[in-house]
Amino acid sequence: MGYSDELPPVPRPAPEALAAALAALAGRFGNRCAASQAMRDQHAQSTSWLPRQPPDAVVFPENAADVQDIVRICAERRVPVIAYGTGTSLEGQVNAPAGGVCIDMRDMNRILAVHAEDLDCVIEPGVTRKTLNETLRDQGLFFPIDPGADASIGGMAATRASGTNAVRYGTMRDNVLALKVVRADGEMVTTSTRAKKSAAGYDLTRLFIGSEGTLGIITELTMRLHGIPESIAAASCSFPSVKDACNAVILTIQAGIPVARIELLDDVMVKAINAYSRQDLPEMPLLLLEFHGSAPEVEQQSRRFGELAHECGGGAFSWTTRPEDRTRLWQARHDAYWAARALRPGTEQVTTDVCVPISRLADCVEETQRDLRENNLVSPIVGHVGDGNFHTVLLCDMNDADEIARAEGYVHRMVERALAMGGTCTGEHGIGQGKQKYLRRELGESAIDTMRMVKRALDPHNILNPGKLFAFH
Amino acid sequence: MGYSDELPPVPRPAPEALAAALAALAGRFGNRCAASQAMRDQHAQSTSWLPRQPPDAVVFPENAADVQDIVRICAERRVPVIAYGTGTSLEGQVNAPAGGVCIDMRDMNRILAVHAEDLDCVIEPGVTRKTLNETLRDQGLFFPIDPGADASIGGMAATRASGTNAVRYGTMRDNVLALKVVRADGEMVTTSTRAKKSAAGYDLTRLFIGSEGTLGIITELTMRLHGIPESIAAASCSFPSVKDACNAVILTIQAGIPVARIELLDDVMVKAINAYSRQDLPEMPLLLLEFHGSAPEVEQQSRRFGELAHECGGGAFSWTTRPEDRTRLWQARHDAYWAARALRPGTEQVTTDVCVPISRLADCVEETQRDLRENNLVSPIVGHVGDGNFHTVLLCDMNDADEIARAEGYVHRMVERALAMGGTCTGEHGIGQGKQKYLRRELGESAIDTMRMVKRALDPHNILNPGKLFAFH
Repeated sequence: MGYSDELPPVPRPAPEALAAALAALAGRFGNRCAASQAMRDQHAQSTSWLPRQPPDAVVFPENAADVQDIVRICAERRVPVIAYGTGTSLEGQVNAPAGGVCIDMRDMNRILAVHAEDLDCVIEPGVTRKTLNETLRDQGLFFPIDPGADASIGGMAATRASGTNAVRYGTMRDNVLALKVVRADGEMVTTSTRAKKSAAGYDLTRLFIGSEGTLGIITELTMRLHGIPESIAAASCSFPSVKDACNAVILTIQAGIPVARIELLDDVMVKAINAYSRQDLPEMPLLLLEFHGSAPEVEQQSRRFGELAHECGGGAFSWTTRPEDRTRLWQARHDAYWAARALRPGTEQVTTDVCVPISRLADCVEETQRDLRENNLVSPIVGHVGDGNFHTVLLCDMNDADEIARAEGYVHRMVERALAMGGTCTGEHGIGQGKQKYLRRELGESAIDTMRMVKRALDPHNILNPGKLFAFH
Repeated sequence: MGYSDELPPVPRPAPEALAAALAALAGRFGNRCAASQAMRDQHAQSTSWLPRQPPDAVVFPENAADVQDIVRICAERRVPVIAYGTGTSLEGQVNAPAGGVCIDMRDMNRILAVHAEDLDCVIEPGVTRKTLNETLRDQGLFFPIDPGADASIGGMAATRASGTNAVRYGTMRDNVLALKVVRADGEMVTTSTRAKKSAAGYDLTRLFIGSEGTLGIITELTMRLHGIPESIAAASCSFPSVKDACNAVILTIQAGIPVARIELLDDVMVKAINAYSRQDLPEMPLLLLEFHGSAPEVEQQSRRFGELAHECGGGAFSWTTRPEDRTRLWQARHDAYWAARALRPGTEQVTTDVCVPISRLADCVEETQRDLRENNLVSPIVGHVGDGNFHTVLLCDMNDADEIARAEGYVHRMVERALAMGGTCTGEHGIGQGKQKYLRRELGESAIDTMRMVKRALDPHNILNPGKLFAFH
């Protein structure tokens, strides 16, 4: 099902090699190494239509030296290792197509240092973004990247996560200062320092960010932080069409209004929310926004956006800085996931994302909506539209082979459309297993060759998360 | 002299191989291939105390296919190729220690597309930043990275340049969306798309940015642009000490004031400027600032900064949005280079930079000043202090062996100090030839090993700008 039948096969390790590795791990880690079927199943990808492929064992390291030991034990026997944060990736990134050992970072969850004056912190990879933000709050600091799920920061770095705040604060690419990474040979690599910028050699930090665990295992991260804004305003505005909403977004970005979040919900999503949350939002495309700054700044930003929205045909524009009103205004977005599910109970949600130059966003969304209608598919659309990034949340009856076939064709055309518009097959979910053929279409063989050269140089025996991104051979 | 005697030797190509390559290039490129001594000398590094090492020939390609041909002709014969923009790099990046062929991008200077709605443009690598900004101005757009020199954008990408605007707009790392790059085997690689963000595979764009021409030759860049702000305010404020000035910077960054530039000039630099430009600035540390936004935004930002500066002991604070007054206020910064030279006519300027976590900036600058005094050296200090990055502009009598020895010791201690404070040996000038030993000290052998694995994988015969960054063997 899905794209996985097109994936290159990854050979399983020799049974005796695997057994030797598992025995060595059991000896070294005792009950922090688990191989029960339940534990293995828990660590197989489960958030997409890709088949679940459990690892052969799961180990819970407590520190970087543990990770080095796991990697060395496995490397010696050519057994795959797969780093695992919270399992919330969406393209099969933690699946184990060749089996092997899952390294669950659950217990490497310490916040090692917070440098408030420097706006940075040093953490272990298992820290989740909500835990980090709870710890930082008392110091007036926050970590802005919010992909929705309460993902681990290590996993977010490995998949180059972004989400709703990226339009202002950037993605994981922009918010990691330095990493410590265990290489496939077990060596520990420090990629950079706490300095805010550096011109010192290759950008190893960015090389590992987004490499989906295929080049090394992250054991420590130095993260940029931001001061909690003095004032936060939320705003919402409905538009007659997606095109009008997108035009308002384009004008906002061009005017340099430093909007912190700007999210599009299409009319299908708004209807779903009205039904689910008993709201009475106008059943047309909706923009939800957030502004960060001093009180007068957010007032001005909100007012300037309101003027631009009005020029683009936007309806009643409401904004507020009161926390309870902000929550109410954004309730629609927070409810989106459950509201979408409630549209077709019993179906699976298949989420996919693309990202296009913002001038093409309206065309891309509208053609995607038309495609859905023509193929009798149900999929609300939500988008981080300030970046030209949107998701469709396809509700697919997995017992209906014809519907699955139509859904696959739809996802395929959506990606092709984004590529034809100068965009990318994924703005934030990554390649994993699900989008390998599109990576090749997007960048061409010589880019994949270049990635493969890097992969083979750093992991010559393909033990780090094999079967992801592109074929090793 | 300098550090170059510590550099690993790079073998020159076999004479017959070099002759064959030069003959093939002359046949293919006619008078766009030049080997006169004058032309060769012009293309050797000349902005530092590193010895000039000219290439054997200079070729002027007109398009990407020309670059592919040059690389293929040279690769076949194992002859080095060195990409060249404007020759304004500061650490010997365009020197040719093993000879070879310089690829001067002078004629690849077309602006291929400006996408105003998407805030991006597509350009060839020889376009300089001033030319780009002149072209963009009519469309209300600008490209923010300003390293001082009117460098080529290709060279700026290759060295991960930044400069005065980086505190707000980031460095070249953050402002390149995609590259086209000719690999060592002559293949053309497309690294990404025009989408504002992507999670599609390894971050090849960032891998090439800052690789100093050692992994590939950039032939096209897709750049992020920004709207010219509605209003620009300049401000200046003197402080009793570097520590007070740095405290004001820290508070400004923590408060999230989106300052566009924040530059520190130390008292030595201010004295030099008073002497050179007949100004009467208070002879104490000076902060110069620029704010970008709507008229009320820049007024608020300026006022908020003024309050913080006052808290930190800052003196009279002046700000203005009138262009002629802004120019006057920033005159000190614009004159800094010539004012520094005038301090000791007949000496060479040796510029070096480091970058530290901002909480350590005052300590680092003050210890550096003390070191200068103790060693009877003259070096004004200027800094992009919002990033924790500063330069010393050492004025060194190159006929005085003792002074040269003291200067080398001073630069060495300055870098060691920055590293001990958790910083980097270079915030923006890069490694080139001049800082190779510090790259190793900063990140350790396993990081250099990792870089070397990548280098050998992409350029197995070490023909791309050999002798830079780290030893190939």
